[in-house]
Amino acid sequence: MATTHEAEALITSHDPHHPANLICELCKKFYTLGWVTGTGGGTSIRDGERIYIAPSGVQKELMKPQDLFVMDYATREYLRRPPVLKPSACTPLFMAAFTLRGAGCCIHTHSKDAVLVTLLCEAAGTDVFEIQKLEQIKGIPKGYGEEKKGNLGYHDRLRIPIIDNTAHEEDLKDTLEGAIKQWPDTHAVLVKRHGIYVWGKDVAQAKTQCESLDYIFQLAVEMHKLGLPWIPK
Amino acid sequence: MATTHEAEALITSHDPHHPANLICELCKKFYTLGWVTGTGGGTSIRDGERIYIAPSGVQKELMKPQDLFVMDYATREYLRRPPVLKPSACTPLFMAAFTLRGAGCCIHTHSKDAVLVTLLCEAAGTDVFEIQKLEQIKGIPKGYGEEKKGNLGYHDRLRIPIIDNTAHEEDLKDTLEGAIKQWPDTHAVLVKRHGIYVWGKDVAQAKTQCESLDYIFQLAVEMHKLGLPWIPK
Amino acid sequence: MATTHEAEALITSHDPHHPANLICELCKKFYTLGWVTGTGGGTSIRDGERIYIAPSGVQKELMKPQDLFVMDYATREYLRRPPVLKPSACTPLFMAAFTLRGAGCCIHTHSKDAVLVTLLCEAAGTDVFEIQKLEQIKGIPKGYGEEKKGNLGYHDRLRIPIIDNTAHEEDLKDTLEGAIKQWPDTHAVLVKRHGIYVWGKDVAQAKTQCESLDYIFQLAVEMHKLGLPWIPK
Amino acid sequence: MATTHEAEALITSHDPHHPANLICELCKKFYTLGWVTGTGGGTSIRDGERIYIAPSGVQKELMKPQDLFVMDYATREYLRRPPVLKPSACTPLFMAAFTLRGAGCCIHTHSKDAVLVTLLCEAAGTDVFEIQKLEQIKGIPKGYGEEKKGNLGYHDRLRIPIIDNTAHEEDLKDTLEGAIKQWPDTHAVLVKRHGIYVWGKDVAQAKTQCESLDYIFQLAVEMHKLGLPWIPK
Repeated sequence: MATTHEAEALITSHDPHHPANLICELCKKFYTLGWVTGTGGGTSIRDGERIYIAPSGVQKELMKPQDLFVMDYATREYLRRPPVLKPSACTPLFMAAFTLRGAGCCIHTHSKDAVLVTLLCEAAGTDVFEIQKLEQIKGIPKGYGEEKKGNLGYHDRLRIPIIDNTAHEEDLKDTLEGAIKQWPDTHAVLVKRHGIYVWGKDVAQAKTQCESLDYIFQLAVEMHKLGLPWIPK
Repeated sequence: MATTHEAEALITSHDPHHPANLICELCKKFYTLGWVTGTGGGTSIRDGERIYIAPSGVQKELMKPQDLFVMDYATREYLRRPPVLKPSACTPLFMAAFTLRGAGCCIHTHSKDAVLVTLLCEAAGTDVFEIQKLEQIKGIPKGYGEEKKGNLGYHDRLRIPIIDNTAHEEDLKDTLEGAIKQWPDTHAVLVKRHGIYVWGKDVAQAKTQCESLDYIFQLAVEMHKLGLPWIPK
Repeated sequence: MATTHEAEALITSHDPHHPANLICELCKKFYTLGWVTGTGGGTSIRDGERIYIAPSGVQKELMKPQDLFVMDYATREYLRRPPVLKPSACTPLFMAAFTLRGAGCCIHTHSKDAVLVTLLCEAAGTDVFEIQKLEQIKGIPKGYGEEKKGNLGYHDRLRIPIIDNTAHEEDLKDTLEGAIKQWPDTHAVLVKRHGIYVWGKDVAQAKTQCESLDYIFQLAVEMHKLGLPWIPK
Repeated sequence: MATTHEAEALITSHDPHHPANLICELCKKFYTLGWVTGTGGGTSIRDGERIYIAPSGVQKELMKPQDLFVMDYATREYLRRPPVLKPSACTPLFMAAFTLRGAGCCIHTHSKDAVLVTLLCEAAGTDVFEIQKLEQIKGIPKGYGEEKKGNLGYHDRLRIPIIDNTAHEEDLKDTLEGAIKQWPDTHAVLVKRHGIYVWGKDVAQAKTQCESLDYIFQLAVEMHKLGLPWIPK
């Protein structure tokens, strides 16, 4: 672990784009959107060899840089650990996005519309959410690497895998990693009756994808109420 | 009653964590969430031997520390009484949470989703709201004391008792106390066609539980509209 | 009309409780609540012999004291008229609440839930909205005068008359006045497919009643979707 | 292209009514309304011979004047082009409103209720959204020119044409121009499964019309859920 002075320097900056400030700003916004209500959800940013992580069990809209954990990417050791707080149970899941997909930011929300979509899929007996022909689908990347550059098109089908929830959040690690491998193009995994994990190469990409997906989930729930199919005939 | 000077000192502080400032801050937030619309709802904090209580019949989002009542916990006498305001009719109900459950903060909201849940339970002929297998249930404590430490698990069933409403809020005291005794683990009681009382050992716990419950009520109402059962088969 | 200097003095004050500042503050809040979207709605305050009125056709959330009209109560002459703006077509309707009911503030919103309630009543063939046994009904006054002091009780039935809409807002005057006389206890009149007029003895009463009613309309619409009757059997 | 100094002067002003400041302010508001979530949507203002345009693919609520493109109206050449950003794919569509209808401001949103309305119309087999007898219809202009001065009346039928979506936004140009010509009175065109384009002679008119339409779409979706027809019998 770093000296106290070094540890404090890791989260101290006047730059609003510093990861420690960005995480707090994002969590405030997510609280307003209803995604991290009642200490739910979490966010992590990878900044080179450092991983910044929001703590467990705190009021996300009141979070301050002092509340953050900072981990060394290579050694997985904490460079900074606020004494009274618990590390996020999402940590191994954030790490999966960083290591398996080279993500720079990973967001976990308890979005109600994400949960409802998993319930509707459960009732329909499927573990993939699929929707087609909505402009906002163009907010989601096609996949990874050179041959999958750019975002999905309007006519492409968006598919988000859904994994079962577990009693303990850290136990989602294996199935989340499994879903990431089984769905090599995906930038998000839904967790049944729980929420969603979304990642992107940087904060802007992770956050705007998370917004685009939530917008699509909201539409999907309303479409279901109105008797409109997710895949047009 | 305290001297005027002492009474003013009770509610005067630059510390945002002082109970007089916290209650105002909470009520502003609850107004934004639609929980204390049109002077509805209320909040009380116990700070050692002092009970801070939001007054009756005021616009909760405009409330100032000067508007608060302060009561002595042991004698139930007001240490501070704003001359033009009426004490909250919720006072005996807040006291029930403080005395019977050792709460440090008690929140009463008129949340629309809480009301709808009581109406759906009424229509179903039950006086207990029950739901299972939602991650957010983990935001609610298991019960009280050493053997019930920690929060409910994902597989546990959340049960919130519902009591009948009365013409006068103070008349809820006996049935609320009855529900607290009948449901020794509960941290909340729903009031039919009215709202909810939620408490916790401190402000953070009471507020985040209140948020978690409201999140669950919102989901429950939407699930009902979508034909999804609250208890999975 | 007053001299320019006198006219400006009427709307210039650092006191946030001055009617010119209050109207702007209220309209900002109403915009956030979705009640005065797209220049809809309006608000008026009676301050002794002066009537302050929000202008027609402006973005209500951007309104400034300089945009307000001020009218003399006795003579109905404008003491202040912003040169480029049009007086509100609601003016005769606000005056009805001031003269017939001694109101101190009258609010007109285009609340979507108010409109939906009028549509549901229209479909049910009734021109009165009626609901019973909701705690928030206690936010509405019983009537006028000594023998009707205080607010409705939980068991009382809330009744709000609905009048037909007209092509021109000012033409609502006769039917609104008719409804006020036919329903001598009412503090509000719904306008079919249009919105609501709500008044109270002062700003706080008018605004909190408007909020309580809108809360009740939101519940009523949701109850209808969930198949729950407005009057319990 | 202008010199760097001239280009910067185009977007630098302390006046909140300067187009560069107005666009940023509008986009922040639209983000809060859920209209430009996840980099969706866009806005353009014509100020004499200059066209100000929000860039593509950015977080609209964080946009700054420095992010804006400025185009010369006559030559269609960029007077200012932020080096790292892409011009909006909506640009030819904004230009259609400026050239064919003399608009001063054009707004493109991904409003969920606009999308739902296009889906409901699609399901009903029509490519025109039609609704009648809602007060808010009076927020929409009758048409263009002297003989169509003023806004629609309460009894008038509001008609908004719906065009098919295309894979690439710029390919909407021909059908949008076609709809504008086929519907010479319209101030808006809905795009199926995508959103809406709304314009007006200035920012206030475009923005308040956009709000009025969205209010109407929200009502239309709720009316459909409640079994209430858009055109009263």
